[in-house]
Amino acid sequence: MTEFDPIASPTTPVADNREPAFVHQPDLDAARAKLGGFANRHGGTAPNVLVVLMDDVGWGDFGCYGGGVAVGAPTPNIDALARRGMQLTSAYSEPSCTPSRATLLTGRLPMRHGLQRPPMYGEPGGLEGEITLADLLSDAGYVTQGVGKWHLGENRDSQPQNCGFDDFYGFLSVSDMYTEWRDPYFFPEIVYSRARTDWIENQPFNKSFVHATRGGELEEVEEVTIPVLSELDQKWCAYSEDFLRRMAGGDQPWFLYHNTRGAHFDNYPHESYLGVSPAKHPYKDTIVELDDIVGRLVKVLEETGQLEDTIIVVTSDNGPEMETWPDAAFTPFRCAKGSTWEGGVRVPMVIAWPGMIEAGRVTDGIFDFNDILPTVLALAGRSDAVPSDRFIDGIDQSSFLLAPDGQSNRKYHYYWLGQAFSALRCGEYKLVLNAVGDDIVSQGDVHGSGGFSGTMQKFPYGKMFNLYLDPKETHSYLIRKLAYQEALVGRVARHRATFAPPYAPKLVVGLNV
Amino acid sequence: MTEFDPIASPTTPVADNREPAFVHQPDLDAARAKLGGFANRHGGTAPNVLVVLMDDVGWGDFGCYGGGVAVGAPTPNIDALARRGMQLTSAYSEPSCTPSRATLLTGRLPMRHGLQRPPMYGEPGGLEGEITLADLLSDAGYVTQGVGKWHLGENRDSQPQNCGFDDFYGFLSVSDMYTEWRDPYFFPEIVYSRARTDWIENQPFNKSFVHATRGGELEEVEEVTIPVLSELDQKWCAYSEDFLRRMAGGDQPWFLYHNTRGAHFDNYPHESYLGVSPAKHPYKDTIVELDDIVGRLVKVLEETGQLEDTIIVVTSDNGPEMETWPDAAFTPFRCAKGSTWEGGVRVPMVIAWPGMIEAGRVTDGIFDFNDILPTVLALAGRSDAVPSDRFIDGIDQSSFLLAPDGQSNRKYHYYWLGQAFSALRCGEYKLVLNAVGDDIVSQGDVHGSGGFSGTMQKFPYGKMFNLYLDPKETHSYLIRKLAYQEALVGRVARHRATFAPPYAPKLVVGLNV
Repeated sequence: MTEFDPIASPTTPVADNREPAFVHQPDLDAARAKLGGFANRHGGTAPNVLVVLMDDVGWGDFGCYGGGVAVGAPTPNIDALARRGMQLTSAYSEPSCTPSRATLLTGRLPMRHGLQRPPMYGEPGGLEGEITLADLLSDAGYVTQGVGKWHLGENRDSQPQNCGFDDFYGFLSVSDMYTEWRDPYFFPEIVYSRARTDWIENQPFNKSFVHATRGGELEEVEEVTIPVLSELDQKWCAYSEDFLRRMAGGDQPWFLYHNTRGAHFDNYPHESYLGVSPAKHPYKDTIVELDDIVGRLVKVLEETGQLEDTIIVVTSDNGPEMETWPDAAFTPFRCAKGSTWEGGVRVPMVIAWPGMIEAGRVTDGIFDFNDILPTVLALAGRSDAVPSDRFIDGIDQSSFLLAPDGQSNRKYHYYWLGQAFSALRCGEYKLVLNAVGDDIVSQGDVHGSGGFSGTMQKFPYGKMFNLYLDPKETHSYLIRKLAYQEALVGRVARHRATFAPPYAPKLVVGLNV
Repeated sequence: MTEFDPIASPTTPVADNREPAFVHQPDLDAARAKLGGFANRHGGTAPNVLVVLMDDVGWGDFGCYGGGVAVGAPTPNIDALARRGMQLTSAYSEPSCTPSRATLLTGRLPMRHGLQRPPMYGEPGGLEGEITLADLLSDAGYVTQGVGKWHLGENRDSQPQNCGFDDFYGFLSVSDMYTEWRDPYFFPEIVYSRARTDWIENQPFNKSFVHATRGGELEEVEEVTIPVLSELDQKWCAYSEDFLRRMAGGDQPWFLYHNTRGAHFDNYPHESYLGVSPAKHPYKDTIVELDDIVGRLVKVLEETGQLEDTIIVVTSDNGPEMETWPDAAFTPFRCAKGSTWEGGVRVPMVIAWPGMIEAGRVTDGIFDFNDILPTVLALAGRSDAVPSDRFIDGIDQSSFLLAPDGQSNRKYHYYWLGQAFSALRCGEYKLVLNAVGDDIVSQGDVHGSGGFSGTMQKFPYGKMFNLYLDPKETHSYLIRKLAYQEALVGRVARHRATFAPPYAPKLVVGLNV
């Protein structure tokens, strides 16, 4: 292990509109050499990019994270992919779906892209006005394909075919929108009330899953009833498999952004998966289905000779939703989706690129969803395309990924909770200033649910957790680490200062709560 | 996966003095064939047995259980061993040290061997009168070597050289006995009080680590001061390495019972390990040291050509001790050492036997510390040697280990908390009748410490947890699983009936609280 102090070591400015980076010169050199070799072998063609983004799947769900068979749902395909690539133990999403997805596609924090919470029932507001990874890769000559869940706004300019994707096949909202007025078991008070059903049906969200091509109109493929919903992950996987086969042997690199329906509540796995998990619960059956889907996509890449040309990222958009238990994920960490405790935002992430990323790496280096954009652009040789007209929070992590024992290029992770700054991580230290409570006093659940239902708690002097010694965040010991407080509080102030003009926060009208 | 209902499937009686077993005929056949092949290849010589038993190390500490680099202490050697063998996700110890160790060596629950809690400060009572795995393997022609922590009684008849070991090199008590009156930082009120120091010094426990040979007197090797203690794991590892080298090429099989000092509080890792872990804390440095020790022992087995002749078990004696935090382990589960919540008793366990146990297995089959004795005897071809004059709780798990996708031969795990029956697990279901509280009301810690300090809580109708859907035991739903209640409560009654004469509980005088 290289000796390296994440608190004391300085960062390097990148640009006025960029988060400063941890530069590790030997890693950079190794990465550059590897990328040079790849370019030589491929006549300068950039690598393909496959992002598989799951929904509400927890850090602990996959076998390689201590879950799998231990929690009644083996994940052999994902575990095998992790062994062929790298497993990140400190990858961070945002606390909920839409903020995470927008952050992934824009390289920006929710206070910049404006989607601090999900748009529900067709609320106005979405990704419009943002520059996405799909836009930038299109400009760089990529074929861009979006599949599955979108949930980044239903208004025209926020639809995927107007946000950089050549083609989109999926739904625009979130799984429970399509089912919570159809399932008499979970929602009798809606299903058996014409008035409440009418209310939801009249909300302006598209009730079908859709297809669209760049700049075009939405075509409704099929209304998303519960039986249709149960087939979506299979249909979407087949669509992505077709795309991958079509792309084989082509001369353009491609970006496939594959978003699964599962495992968002309520889970209705495909009938061929009912009861297949040892746990025999729809959530766990869905995990098995999702694992198979990863296996199928990897297999097509292998069969079509594209595996070594493709960067694969498999991750989830936030931690477990515990208010729907037992239809719920597993995290060993504190609290749940909707919180900035680790349980809410620390997500599984496997990144593979056989031949380029060393196989079998497991790393605790910090990686933020917003790092995906600048990192992918760097791997595609197009770092120059990172937008310069707006603030980009993401850091180029290509040397972290490609150097044999590469270190994260990110010094700080910033936790935001809606429009409130919540916490800062540096190394193994986490300074918490605002957080939802998950104890009895704040009306959350005493054993770690809480999440959106918790009361916001302010800690004027902060709480300090050591995530190595105290991964469950149960023992604040700020008073023992006063030496770090000034540096960390100072960093929070500097981070807040990045929201001064010309980079003022963006608040999407209609989502501004 | 084979379809198999752990609740409905019947068990097979083994003997009046034995827990009934789950018999899976295809597994049995596969195991028998493998053992026959081994015997043929080795001229009938039985396999060697190496048990590495760590102290207070948590389920979550090793990388392959989701810990490792994620919690600031990589464990590459143990992870590699798991990939060469099998990783058990539902292995159970007892709630604390001595009960677990005695259970491992006798195949019996604490209410049978009498050690329901650790003897402290040289209290009378220990393993005397019990038949140990070392006794039985000695009778079967094994060389038996004990190394490291004993903590099964200091009285003459409970000492290791009188409990089946040809040779012993280690200490008789527990790590903190030797340090809690020597360290002015943690224990100023003792160190600076002559009266309190005298009191401890005058307690009848041996202040030295010792050497003994079968039936002989203890030789004091060296007084265990803090500097000496910090070297014990290195010295003990070297002693075991020497033993393994000496055994190479001999014509007797051997049993090495290697008990580490680490990672029991207070941890003083060897000076060459100070600060080597990413977390740079003594607990984490100790984990790195322990992982290296596993690596060294495996390496000697490899170098001396004994690896394929040796069954290796690496495990820990109970969950994390949280009252000494940050000198503490990690578990994703509820509560801690001293409790029967999963955090107290679910321990990491890696079992390897290259060429015999399929590599890379991960299994949630239930395995109890008391299964080690009958399982090892079966693997040694000496199932006939399992004692018939007393109750043996352990089950022969040899087919679970050896069959390619073998299933556990254990239907039920019984959780005892001292002299109170606490809980029953069957499949993924856990019925809890008595448990220490870990909530504010019972004066435990709201976020999962508790353990010994919790108030005993009785649940007259029981709480029912599903360990797949709810690994943290936060959502009892007995009322949903009433169909199972009668079977499980009935099983508790039948288990209790096994303590009727002639198998009355054993209470060690002096430890009977």
